[in-house]
Amino acid sequence: MNNIENGVFYGVGVGPGDEELLTLKAVRIIGQADVIVAPCAKNGGDSIALKIIKKFIDNNTEVITKHFPMGDEDQQEKIYDAFLCISEKLSEGKNVVFITIGDPLIYSTYIYLLKYIKEAGYKSFTIPGITSFTAAAAASSEILVIGNEPLLIIPGSRVKDIKEEKYVVIMKVYKCEEEILNTLEEKGFKYVYVKKASREGQEILRNREEILRSKEYMALIIASKK
Amino acid sequence: MNNIENGVFYGVGVGPGDEELLTLKAVRIIGQADVIVAPCAKNGGDSIALKIIKKFIDNNTEVITKHFPMGDEDQQEKIYDAFLCISEKLSEGKNVVFITIGDPLIYSTYIYLLKYIKEAGYKSFTIPGITSFTAAAAASSEILVIGNEPLLIIPGSRVKDIKEEKYVVIMKVYKCEEEILNTLEEKGFKYVYVKKASREGQEILRNREEILRSKEYMALIIASKK
Repeated sequence: MNNIENGVFYGVGVGPGDEELLTLKAVRIIGQADVIVAPCAKNGGDSIALKIIKKFIDNNTEVITKHFPMGDEDQQEKIYDAFLCISEKLSEGKNVVFITIGDPLIYSTYIYLLKYIKEAGYKSFTIPGITSFTAAAAASSEILVIGNEPLLIIPGSRVKDIKEEKYVVIMKVYKCEEEILNTLEEKGFKYVYVKKASREGQEILRNREEILRSKEYMALIIASKK
Repeated sequence: MNNIENGVFYGVGVGPGDEELLTLKAVRIIGQADVIVAPCAKNGGDSIALKIIKKFIDNNTEVITKHFPMGDEDQQEKIYDAFLCISEKLSEGKNVVFITIGDPLIYSTYIYLLKYIKEAGYKSFTIPGITSFTAAAAASSEILVIGNEPLLIIPGSRVKDIKEEKYVVIMKVYKCEEEILNTLEEKGFKYVYVKKASREGQEILRNREEILRSKEYMALIIASKK
């Protein structure tokens, strides 16, 4: 008979890249973790999230990197594989912290993982993180939204779906930069492109040609009109 | 001749209420401030933002509370008055930190204040904060947005403007709760109402009648549909 009480699962948002944009809560939970599970976008590659928290990890903490492909065919399979790994640790009574860049509940594969964790009945907590778009707005000193207006956060491939909104953030702009800028210009928006907000290599571009030359995965556009 | 170099202005997001949701950067900048300016919603009332950061303020820091009415007629006048106060301190060479709950660039009167600061040519930095809606999502374990879908952040009075979006956050729900719930139900949304996310008195309500009885200013609704 197994008398060990299950560990607790924490999904922790580690923010956009600057380690100073970690919350006190994230730092505390990371420092107390038995196991940290970090996603990496490329198999065998570095984990951006892990790099952010590196200096806050206790020496006794086990760190596991798991391949989380973004939008690939085997995404669900890989997430389930990560769940099994986490589940094993939780059932050994270990507290497991899964880290995710930005906020865990905005465009994050964490959402699928959390579903498995909850279905299995584990105790779980989600810790919010600084989102890429608030960091980008702060870096570029751009308003996100004010007054009685809505703010639309939209993936680049859906840019045609902008209706009467005056304040828009365009996420996932990589490989559709030109269509996005054309649509924004047609609709009378002014825009700023922010690459790697708060991280090494941060760039803030307002010139169309410069933006089109950038070709950066970690980038977004903040747009507004009168 | 005045040889004092102007101080630097910092607009710091202090998050939704839990002091542990402050970022390391916010804590550092608050601790080093010569002057902290805190807004309060009611004249002579307490500042929620100030309460959040209280224990991180150095003994030598001057703390000034300024009345920032939300949406009142004299709002612009009061903001300009706060600017004059800040400007005086900056010109004395003091670093001034203006604190704001949530994130400074989302629905915050900080945006108007920053405009004056920039027009006057002062050096300024904005530090992003945890937003109320990411904290509410974390507290209630609700998805904000996933996949290739947009996320619409919309004030309660504009709820009729929800189009085909499947993921919506309704801010400023106070006094229009019934209209919001009616609209969401008509459109086939499921919803969760989060009051005082991460703060003392936090409540997570999913029942229509309980939500209508709540009548809380610091509340928002997260809604989604398939």
